[in-house]
Amino acid sequence: MGNNAPIGVFDSGLGGLTVLKEIIARLPEEDTIYLGDTARVPYGIRSPEVVTRYSLENARFLLGRGIKLLVIACNTASAISLPALKLESPVPVIGVIEPGARAAVQASKTGRIGVIGTETTIKSGAYRIVLERLAPSVKVFSRSCPLFVPLAEEGWADNEIALLAARNYLTGLNEEGIDTLLLGCTHYPLLKETIARVMGDGVTLIDSARETAREIQETLAEGALSNMTDASPRRQFYVTDAPERFKALGGRFLLGGQPAGRGLSSIKDVKLTEVWNEAGWQKK
Amino acid sequence: MGNNAPIGVFDSGLGGLTVLKEIIARLPEEDTIYLGDTARVPYGIRSPEVVTRYSLENARFLLGRGIKLLVIACNTASAISLPALKLESPVPVIGVIEPGARAAVQASKTGRIGVIGTETTIKSGAYRIVLERLAPSVKVFSRSCPLFVPLAEEGWADNEIALLAARNYLTGLNEEGIDTLLLGCTHYPLLKETIARVMGDGVTLIDSARETAREIQETLAEGALSNMTDASPRRQFYVTDAPERFKALGGRFLLGGQPAGRGLSSIKDVKLTEVWNEAGWQKK
Repeated sequence: MGNNAPIGVFDSGLGGLTVLKEIIARLPEEDTIYLGDTARVPYGIRSPEVVTRYSLENARFLLGRGIKLLVIACNTASAISLPALKLESPVPVIGVIEPGARAAVQASKTGRIGVIGTETTIKSGAYRIVLERLAPSVKVFSRSCPLFVPLAEEGWADNEIALLAARNYLTGLNEEGIDTLLLGCTHYPLLKETIARVMGDGVTLIDSARETAREIQETLAEGALSNMTDASPRRQFYVTDAPERFKALGGRFLLGGQPAGRGLSSIKDVKLTEVWNEAGWQKK
Repeated sequence: MGNNAPIGVFDSGLGGLTVLKEIIARLPEEDTIYLGDTARVPYGIRSPEVVTRYSLENARFLLGRGIKLLVIACNTASAISLPALKLESPVPVIGVIEPGARAAVQASKTGRIGVIGTETTIKSGAYRIVLERLAPSVKVFSRSCPLFVPLAEEGWADNEIALLAARNYLTGLNEEGIDTLLLGCTHYPLLKETIARVMGDGVTLIDSARETAREIQETLAEGALSNMTDASPRRQFYVTDAPERFKALGGRFLLGGQPAGRGLSSIKDVKLTEVWNEAGWQKK
């Protein structure tokens, strides 16, 4: 049996490509459709109401294309809109908060866990809620780091400016004696080396992308949704603003670091779409 | 006679408040309606097509409220969308590019002028085109400074991080021997001291807000549009995302530096609107 429909992945923009990369590495045979809402990025400074409106529009666009699983590859949208998306979606929905939190709890020995993310993610308390549910005895310390996203997009991930910004944001967390730091934004893995330099060897950095890919694999297996054909996988990319900037910067997110798996040497064909004008999938 | 309709001002978000401040200082008797498109900020990373679509929606919202003059208090929207807005609007439209360029040409002795702004503003070449039209012999050197907006919004306008970023962006311009630097983004006046420190005493910094307010005053006078009543001016604020962040950060832009003129001690009443769902003004 099996199911050869694509996995749908959306993000506010580019950052979710770090999650797509891990999905492709773990499930190279699966078709994927990625949607980056580049006309309305970033989500991390927006209100919960607006984040949910945009997230629902993105989800409807992908559901309208017959996906078998919906991945919210954006921490802010996962933190705010997962319940609304689960309510609307006829297919399983996976966010990045729960996988990331699970990995952090597994990694921590002292139970003192730090979380960094966008303003809206940190204000939502989503990570704290999930962490405390998974392990009621943990102590959670959190901090928003608004400049990390523009630094990563500017390509200033490991210069003196990034280091000073990281010191400004993270010194307080370090003083709390945490042993694990959750990178609660898909852009932050690009600053991993700089963050590690500030936090020191005693602190494990958790990037939720890999754990999210593992959860996707399990969900597909449990639901008998895995692709059993061996046709070459189809990779579709959609953006809501002109594709040029996405194409120019996307490689840094999708291809940086480890190899990205079969069938993905670069981002070539990116299509423009207006998710807010798409009727998309209608709930039956 | 005269005309007591309000002046309409829009910006992608908060930055245009630096322009509103100068309008109020110069024309304290005029009613104003300010619209910040906070659900879709920033414009400086978006394509020209998207910037124009958003700008038209903002303009229609304000025109639907009976304004007598439309001010584009955003450099990116002015650089890209002024012609489209002039075509649609039944009232005069004033952007910030031309006033800023005029002030720069007046200030420069050597004719070597630098321009800094967002990616989209600098790529558009709008400042270069206007500067060369005003003074064909000028030499224009330009540079986008993507991190300046997040630095200003973070309140990191004059720390070590801002200074290093400014050095990174501006050293090349300094080596070109410019004597005038146009701050081509409404956020940049907040970093004025840091920019001045990098550029040195020999370089005059031009902030287009004041010159824009002067042009508005002239346009009102020429068109017999000035308010001749002496009722207290009405200040209306609209945003497209929840008002909290706008209220929290707005003061830094509207009240920082010089006094802002009569009737404006803080931003109190900010209303939420969805410009994309408003029918607004319809062209006759």
